[in-house]
Formats: sequence, C-alpha cells, structure tokens
Amino acid sequence: MSQSYAIGIDLGGTNIKAALVADDGAMAVKSKRVCDPARGPEPVVNEMAQMCAELTAEAGISRERIVGVGLGTPGPLDFDRGMILKAANLPGWIEVPIRDWLQSSVGFPVVLENDANAAAFGEFWAGSGRGGGDMVMLTLGTGVGSGVIVNDRLLRGHFGNAAELGHMIVVPAGLLCGCGQRGCLEQYASASAVARRVHSAIQTGAPATLAAGSMPNARDIEQAARAGDELCRRIWQEACLYLAVACVNIQHAFNPATIILGGGLAEAGDFLLDPVRDEFKKQTWSLCNDQPSIIAAALGYDAGVIGAAGLAWRSQQ
Amino acid sequence: MSQSYAIGIDLGGTNIKAALVADDGAMAVKSKRVCDPARGPEPVVNEMAQMCAELTAEAGISRERIVGVGLGTPGPLDFDRGMILKAANLPGWIEVPIRDWLQSSVGFPVVLENDANAAAFGEFWAGSGRGGGDMVMLTLGTGVGSGVIVNDRLLRGHFGNAAELGHMIVVPAGLLCGCGQRGCLEQYASASAVARRVHSAIQTGAPATLAAGSMPNARDIEQAARAGDELCRRIWQEACLYLAVACVNIQHAFNPATIILGGGLAEAGDFLLDPVRDEFKKQTWSLCNDQPSIIAAALGYDAGVIGAAGLAWRSQQ
Repeated sequence: MSQSYAIGIDLGGTNIKAALVADDGAMAVKSKRVCDPARGPEPVVNEMAQMCAELTAEAGISRERIVGVGLGTPGPLDFDRGMILKAANLPGWIEVPIRDWLQSSVGFPVVLENDANAAAFGEFWAGSGRGGGDMVMLTLGTGVGSGVIVNDRLLRGHFGNAAELGHMIVVPAGLLCGCGQRGCLEQYASASAVARRVHSAIQTGAPATLAAGSMPNARDIEQAARAGDELCRRIWQEACLYLAVACVNIQHAFNPATIILGGGLAEAGDFLLDPVRDEFKKQTWSLCNDQPSIIAAALGYDAGVIGAAGLAWRSQQ
Repeated sequence: MSQSYAIGIDLGGTNIKAALVADDGAMAVKSKRVCDPARGPEPVVNEMAQMCAELTAEAGISRERIVGVGLGTPGPLDFDRGMILKAANLPGWIEVPIRDWLQSSVGFPVVLENDANAAAFGEFWAGSGRGGGDMVMLTLGTGVGSGVIVNDRLLRGHFGNAAELGHMIVVPAGLLCGCGQRGCLEQYASASAVARRVHSAIQTGAPATLAAGSMPNARDIEQAARAGDELCRRIWQEACLYLAVACVNIQHAFNPATIILGGGLAEAGDFLLDPVRDEFKKQTWSLCNDQPSIIAAALGYDAGVIGAAGLAWRSQQ
C-alpha cells in the first residue's frame, strides 16, 4: 500500500509555510510563500490551496493519498465554528471562517488549531516530546507562545484559550505587556523582550559593548553575554530566572514529564537551558521528585507545519 | 429498584470523616471520628472499616446496595499502587498501601485520591461547579490545596502531582514556604498565613486592635478588618491581591469556566470574593473575554467526603 500524507500549513502574518508530512512526522516536501494579510482572507485562502496543489504535484502524489489538512493560525479562534475571531498579526481579519473556506477550496477535511498549540503538538508528535507523556512547550520568540499536552491531547480549556503561558504573571506590578497586564513572562523571557530591555538600558546610558543606535537581536545579546558584557549577562540571567519561575509554576499546575523551550531565544542551546535548569533547581520544592525535564525543541521553525499535519493525522484516527 | 450508595471517606491528620452518598451527591448519613495517626496505619484502617459498617447499619442498608468506597487522603500518593508515599499530617506513614488494605477490610472496591483533589471533585460533582465545565478549586485553609477538572476529570499529570497550585510562586524571592520554595501562594493566601502575618506584625510592634499574645484566626482578622483595623485590612487585601494574580495565572494555564474558593478564609464570603474579583479584573488581560467566574464553594467541610464518594460512583461507570 502506498504511503499516505497529511498537509500541514502554518499561517503567519509574514509567511505561509506548508509541508506534506508522513504519518511518522517526516516531511516529504515543504514550501513557503510571503503572506499578505492586508489583501484580506480570500486571496490568502487561494494561496494556501495553490500551495497544497503544488506540494502534491511536486511529490508526484495523487489526491487519494492525502488524508487531510491541518492549519495552524494566530488566534484567538472559535474551534466549533472553525473561525479566526481576530489576530494581532492578521489585521482586519475579524470572524473569518477559515476552516470551511479552505476546506471548500482544497477539497480535503481541514483541522484548525492555533499556531502555538500546533507547534507544541509537533514537538509532542515528532520532536523532543515524542513518547514522553504530558508536555508543556514555551516558544520564546516575538512573544512567548505555549501549548500543553495532557493525556496525549492539546489542552484547550472552557473558552478555548488554555496554555497562554506567556501571559502568566511572574512579576506582580511588573513591566506593562501588550495584552494590558503587568509582569507577564513574555515581558522578560521572549527573544524580543530581552532585546528590548538591553536596548532601552543602553539608551538610558548603561555601559555596554553593543551599539546604542539599533535594536539588537537575541543572538547579538547572547554573543555579548558570552563575551562578558555585564548588561547583557544580567538581562539574560533575568530571563532565565523568570523562565525558571514559570517552570516551577508549570510543574505545580500540570506536573508534566517535560518542558520544552523553543523559539529564537532557545537557539542559544545550553547557554539558555543550563541557567534555566540551575535556577529551576534553586526555585522548586524538594518535597517530592516530580520535576519535569527541561529540554530544547527539536523541530525549529518546522514545528508548526509538522504539528498541524499531525493534528490532521490525529483527526483521521 | 432501591437506591444505591457510595461511601466517601476523608482521612486527615486530626479527623476521619465518612458519609453514605447517593448518586446525586446527597449525603444520607455521615460520621466523624478522631484520627490518631501516631498509632500507625492499621488501627486507622480498622476504624475506617468500622465507620463503613456503622454507616450502612445506621441507614438500614444492605451491603449489596454499596457500589464502592472513595478514600481521600493527604499525599503525595502513588496512584498505580494505591499508596500513601508520605504525608506531613500522618507522621511515620511511609509507603502505606492504604487502598488495598482498606479494600480487604471493607470488602468493597476502593478508589484512592488525594484530599484536595477529592474536595475539588466534590464541588464539581455536587457543589458550586456542578454542570459548569472545566473548573479549578483553591482551598484556603492551613495551606492552599487545589484541584483541577479538565474534560470532566481530575488532572493528575505525569508524576501524579498536578494541581499543587498553593505552591505557585506569586512573589519571586518572597516568603519562605514549608515546601522549601520562596513566594508560594500558600504563604500569602492561606487562612494560616494571613493569621501568621498579622500576628508577626503585631509582635514586631505594628499598631493593631488585636491582642499581641495569642495567634489570631482568620475569622478574628476578618472581623478586625471589617471594623477598620488598618493592619488586618492591609494583610487581607494582600491575600486578595495574590489570589487574583493566581487566578490570572490559572486563567491562562487552564482557561476554566470557574474558579472556586473554599476553606477557612473563604468563609468570609463576599468580604473575600469581592476584592479578589476586583483585583482580578485589574490584573487580567482585556484581549479576550475568557475570564472564569470566581465563586464560593458550596459544600464546606463535606466537599472531601462527597467528592471521594463521587469518585467511587465515577469508577463504576
């Protein structure tokens, strides 16, 4: 019997990524296009349908061998109606019934999930979390995205918004977040927050080896911290401290086997993971041996498409 | 067909409570005995078996009408082996296979759960959480116990220790907790913590209307705060603030329909709930309408026995 595939799509404000994925999580072919959400949802739906057709053509696969499409998008979503309610990165997209539109357009069943959940499911299904039981993923990028797996399933909660762990308050009355809250994890431990905090300290005169003019990125700060820049070391260490506090709270909330760190900041590897683990050991209790392993993501920027495809596979079972 | 019953037992360090509970959560008869854990587990198991026999005799019910026993105990537990691993309130009880011992002794199937989870299940099954979907309960007593219901089931996590929300860190580098961590919710918002904080402020000379000599209880502090005592108002308000921070974090972790507050501190009713709700509104995001309702527990000290019985009913289905 010939191999079947699911198509995973990761729709972002900048790019659309898609891939043809086998039932073991391996990508056969993948593609990427620039996304122009300002043109509205319909042209974007058409683009996604074209990408599906191109992927199957490129792989030389007949339509019968596609089991379905998984689509990860920014949220919040209405899962019952398959709808994007609104999304910061897709300006003007209000109550878009994207699941059904894409389904009509591609002719395959479509499963909709929010992008952070899809990425977490990818790591669970085919990445660092594979075979490991309950899992929480934090994606440290522009913000802090997250997904939680309980009993082999994504946790959604009553309102569909579970696992928004980037908005866990780690510093009461702390830094103002774009969400309106104060002291969110995202304001201390996203790649952007680390860059922003260093940049703003330099602009207010803190001694630094980085130039004051332009916004550094997380990689610049990692390198400066490795080279001994005191400011960068301090802000980096604070990110690790608050990630550790978040990991303690995740431990006591979900008690997962594994906490996976991904996204731009986690590309630093052990330079991030080691201090997070050290701080976690200091911050967490000694009452029981129920500490999750804190490990790096394995799928990089493909976690979203692989996870979306995995959800399409799952929905067939 | 005559009504069947489950027996719920709540084993604590001070008392054993038991009740005969119908499948709608109504208690037919209940009883309570002093518990003396220092004598070891075997006499306590015998006492529980006697209580089961007395309850059925008192209700005039034949053994055939008992579907099983639910037992709530302090943890941590080993669910697979039905074992109390160790428990602060049951000194010397190490790796006690309590489920199987009680089962042999009573001759009914026994379901074991930790006491905070059993109480949460009680509120979900027959109390404030009834029919309301995903739910989180915080019990504000000597410590802060908690239980989480996701998709109609208690969340246990990979290591069996999920929903230890009293040990969520709400103040990084804050007050030292008995668990070894710093800044746990339990150190700010348990009934005991509120009393301890007021007492210690008075002893170090803070002006107060309460006597300096003896430890006040939560009720004394509530009354003093209502009467305008500044110290008590401040400590009470801080408890409400950190409970609100915890509720925000619970919202973003589990996104439940309801957060239920129970235990000694919650006996203050709206004097606790109103400021918690006000602070919660201030602290949480305005990005989506996914705020859980924060409400009072309904079952009081019976939540544990009712929930344990509910779990025995559940295990029959």
